[in-house]
Amino acid sequence: MYSSSKLISVKEAGEKISKYMKVIEDKEVVATVDAFERVCAEDVYSPMDNPPFNRSEVDGFAVRTAEFKTHGGQSTTTLDIGGTVEIGITTPAEFGENTCVRISTGSIVPKGYDAVFKIEDVTVKGNKVIFKGKPPKFSNIALAGSDVLKDDLIIRQYSKITEKEMGALAVLGIEKITVFRKVRIGIISSGNELIMPGNELQPGQTYEGNAAVLRTILGKYHFFNTVFYGIVPDSEEDTRNILEKAFSENDVVITTGGSSAGEKDYIGRIAASYNPGVIFHGIDMKPGKPTFFALNGKKILIGLPGFPLSSYIAFTQIFLYKLLGMAHVQPILTETDVQLAMGISARKGGTNFIPVVLYIYDSIYAFPIDGESGSISRLLRSDAIGEVVAKSDRLFPGDTVTITTIEGEQDFLWAVFVGLTDPLMDTIFSISGNPVSMYRTSIEDGMRCLEEGYAPLMGIMVKAGRKPPFKNKDKYSFFKIFSSETGLVFRNGDPIISDDFDHKNEIVVGIPGNGIYPQESIEKCIESIPSAARPPGFSTVDYGDLRSIALAVRSGDISIGLGNRHTASKYNLGFKPVYRETYYVVVTREQKQEFIDTMKKAYQNGALKVLKEKYGSYEIHDDVFLPK
Amino acid sequence: MYSSSKLISVKEAGEKISKYMKVIEDKEVVATVDAFERVCAEDVYSPMDNPPFNRSEVDGFAVRTAEFKTHGGQSTTTLDIGGTVEIGITTPAEFGENTCVRISTGSIVPKGYDAVFKIEDVTVKGNKVIFKGKPPKFSNIALAGSDVLKDDLIIRQYSKITEKEMGALAVLGIEKITVFRKVRIGIISSGNELIMPGNELQPGQTYEGNAAVLRTILGKYHFFNTVFYGIVPDSEEDTRNILEKAFSENDVVITTGGSSAGEKDYIGRIAASYNPGVIFHGIDMKPGKPTFFALNGKKILIGLPGFPLSSYIAFTQIFLYKLLGMAHVQPILTETDVQLAMGISARKGGTNFIPVVLYIYDSIYAFPIDGESGSISRLLRSDAIGEVVAKSDRLFPGDTVTITTIEGEQDFLWAVFVGLTDPLMDTIFSISGNPVSMYRTSIEDGMRCLEEGYAPLMGIMVKAGRKPPFKNKDKYSFFKIFSSETGLVFRNGDPIISDDFDHKNEIVVGIPGNGIYPQESIEKCIESIPSAARPPGFSTVDYGDLRSIALAVRSGDISIGLGNRHTASKYNLGFKPVYRETYYVVVTREQKQEFIDTMKKAYQNGALKVLKEKYGSYEIHDDVFLPK
Repeated sequence: MYSSSKLISVKEAGEKISKYMKVIEDKEVVATVDAFERVCAEDVYSPMDNPPFNRSEVDGFAVRTAEFKTHGGQSTTTLDIGGTVEIGITTPAEFGENTCVRISTGSIVPKGYDAVFKIEDVTVKGNKVIFKGKPPKFSNIALAGSDVLKDDLIIRQYSKITEKEMGALAVLGIEKITVFRKVRIGIISSGNELIMPGNELQPGQTYEGNAAVLRTILGKYHFFNTVFYGIVPDSEEDTRNILEKAFSENDVVITTGGSSAGEKDYIGRIAASYNPGVIFHGIDMKPGKPTFFALNGKKILIGLPGFPLSSYIAFTQIFLYKLLGMAHVQPILTETDVQLAMGISARKGGTNFIPVVLYIYDSIYAFPIDGESGSISRLLRSDAIGEVVAKSDRLFPGDTVTITTIEGEQDFLWAVFVGLTDPLMDTIFSISGNPVSMYRTSIEDGMRCLEEGYAPLMGIMVKAGRKPPFKNKDKYSFFKIFSSETGLVFRNGDPIISDDFDHKNEIVVGIPGNGIYPQESIEKCIESIPSAARPPGFSTVDYGDLRSIALAVRSGDISIGLGNRHTASKYNLGFKPVYRETYYVVVTREQKQEFIDTMKKAYQNGALKVLKEKYGSYEIHDDVFLPK
Repeated sequence: MYSSSKLISVKEAGEKISKYMKVIEDKEVVATVDAFERVCAEDVYSPMDNPPFNRSEVDGFAVRTAEFKTHGGQSTTTLDIGGTVEIGITTPAEFGENTCVRISTGSIVPKGYDAVFKIEDVTVKGNKVIFKGKPPKFSNIALAGSDVLKDDLIIRQYSKITEKEMGALAVLGIEKITVFRKVRIGIISSGNELIMPGNELQPGQTYEGNAAVLRTILGKYHFFNTVFYGIVPDSEEDTRNILEKAFSENDVVITTGGSSAGEKDYIGRIAASYNPGVIFHGIDMKPGKPTFFALNGKKILIGLPGFPLSSYIAFTQIFLYKLLGMAHVQPILTETDVQLAMGISARKGGTNFIPVVLYIYDSIYAFPIDGESGSISRLLRSDAIGEVVAKSDRLFPGDTVTITTIEGEQDFLWAVFVGLTDPLMDTIFSISGNPVSMYRTSIEDGMRCLEEGYAPLMGIMVKAGRKPPFKNKDKYSFFKIFSSETGLVFRNGDPIISDDFDHKNEIVVGIPGNGIYPQESIEKCIESIPSAARPPGFSTVDYGDLRSIALAVRSGDISIGLGNRHTASKYNLGFKPVYRETYYVVVTREQKQEFIDTMKKAYQNGALKVLKEKYGSYEIHDDVFLPK
């Protein structure tokens, strides 16, 4: 039962609430179109490659680079227009030799064609097109899967679905998504004097305003489901009944009114009859003192005062952030200290929440709005709520009060991971619950980023037995993650790697580009193609990673490329091992402990089992999960 | 027609858009429950006093202070419990002499009772209550109208309805509100290759993602009404028809795709056929270059590129802020400079919008996400969009890019007005379209606030012929607003001001409290009550302003008080003029020009006519509106 002698502090109240308000772990599947601002309950992987086909990036003409003269940048090539690929056409016709094909942005680049010229860079003469120079292979083509590969992690568990995710889910054709179910919140307004707007006010009556405010605030969040149970009269029996109904349908029930020290404190009495019952009743704050918090089994009961300002302040300053937490949303709170422009009476020793008018000129000045807790104009006029623990029963001009605002949500990750990223690392970080942003760079750029402090984590592949080639080794820690055999992937049955393969054209080898792999390793693999040393020799094409190479080999864009057992088996290709290598994660001194803790968490959450299932061909270095 | 040689800068594009995108001035009446986040189209005045009756602020006992002994703070008074006022009871019974009445928080204080003791401060013995000391008149009572007076301005035109307004509208029983109608926006997605998610993807096809993103972004705002017209195939006739339908139903039509330099630039051709037609086609930016902006009569056509990243960037960085403006919403944009951690190719001389991954540690580092404009992963992975005009065709690590975020909306007013506030000033500022926050203070506090720089405007009433009593007169400007007669208000026919009125009890005089009026003026008025000088004399009760005094006199809480012709006539009371006074606005040097401009705007908007109608008994000093 409420007594002003048993108040707890705002801080204690917050701790107790956090202890009992648990996040909702239940999941539900919703249509993607309805998923906006819901919290993703599972990692979402792409069901398709994007683009799903080799797509022209420009309006112009598709060509076969093998049909171009190789000598001199100023040489010209003239080709007949073999036809047109209309955009949206699902199966382009086949076109004859020495032809180019009219193509528009977004169209399929027809089979065999491996570069596109922009229309403004060519000369069209009747049915012929004159091209200048020989284009690089795949220029102006977005290769299938170059944006997103099938099975890429696209949305992490616990992310909120923003417009960006809505766009990605649409483009990848994902119609349904698993999210945490909404937090169900019931609101009951209590008081014989209350009537709903729309009825004529009789003397002694007051229009209901608290539920209007609470419903509006909660209604802003797509992850709350709010039901208003109306006004319940001041009767213990009626209140007990409506509470029972509300508890059966919600996770949290909020009452307003009926909780102060008067003879009508029946909500406090009802709460006391629950098990475990009242957790606290009365907070050392002004206004909002008679606020209470109770548990009915695992269901939460929040008792707000009946006066509008008290109810608003207790709800927004004490409970709202915790309700967001139940929905897996962590608000970023920003605290701004401002100076009072006027004095105001205060609750000595307690927390004072003061509605203020702000004047922002050379500094921010806060004018406290005095008045009764029953006031709606105090709330209406306020620009913000200032918070201060008062040392005496009065605050003076120049005293500091703190304004807390929700600045956004915790959506930055704790680190950027540079160098060679790998889906396996994504899996580990995701399982740990402490994900990082993956940002692939060359070895050189990655080392520079670590050196400059731009990023704290880097992935790097080195030949087995070697150490990553860092200069200031004492500034970093090196963690071995896995070892694997690297070599060549090719279509099963393709004679390309037989010793006696007689190749008429250049062998085009897909390699990991942009300096993400050691040059020496790439050379070693190319040297192991028996015919690469013979005329007409070989050329290389850069890809983003080994998976993209495997996809290009499977689709027939290229015949051979670098890979490992994992990509070979995933894309159903032949594999010839060439050498053994080890994948390291390099961590700066500053983030070493965070990384170790993250690996431990991943281990506790069963990462090792998942990795062994998903990456069976890798030799996982188990001890990284339990570093000393 | 789009040509990459006729690009305009991002700045120019913004200016042209601002020139043609006009705010929607049409209004509509909506139910208050549906008004959340809509923009108020008219000043809203309170239809009632709040509280509507004298309301107990505590649980306890209501008493009549006249029945209390006056000598000594420790004296006790014992009263019988005459009965109980139940909360919500509309007409409390009448109670006998020398009784107190049991009362709860929120209940009507019965007629004649003029103070409430808290239950914890009294001793109840059977049917008697023992009280200590004599309470101040009206202690623990929220007087009728003390929070909001009927006809008080409660929501200004152009304010957005937040939860606070929702609460106030509910409590004041306001069921309907006039808001600006929604900005109607139609979205058309164009491209033969596009299909909606839910259909099976055929080779060459792409799932529609742009409209999904646009609809989600626009859907966040309650003042937009968005209709998606689906995917239109690449046909000029189909496109023309769907555009015609969309224009007939919307203020703005957004197309995605079909706007680049290819042979399929039919949307550009259609736009060119409108009158006045294309305003610009092509912005010197990357990505999003082929963006266009056209007018079909007064209807707006926004042409976004078809690639997801280009479309997103053109929309959010170029058009979104302007669409908010159409809805009378001015976003506060915050620009943060961050450092690139990696280099990236750039458009030389043009504006580069770069999706970046942010790493926040000792500083903020931005990792640019490279790739094609067709990418959805670039958008998905980005934490923000960095903006920079590149001096060369490459940006380097350490280069600065700017991130712009919507921090909130312009909801602070340009000034706080202290001292004696007056509804007439609210009217003037409101008509000017440049409202200020009204914050009533004593003369002393107001002068201190101006001196300290806490506030730039102050209202003060001085005796006619005098000047406001400021020390550093050269720091301020003084503007005479109106003059009026101040005196006494009383119920018509009440003999209280007759010379021969024989008063048995103290005369209770309502005065403006808290030092808002000069003490000398108050004394002058009291002296003019003939019998005030005779035993048993008089006592005073403080009120917030003259209107509250008039309301208290009308309701019978007090018999007489300070007032003027305006409050007397508004509350249908008798009036006895005592002296003449002038209302000044004092303005600091820094804000003098802003104040003058505001007065001019008020004048241009017809303030003088409104004031003469509403405040007929005031002598308005017209020249304040046209100061030299």
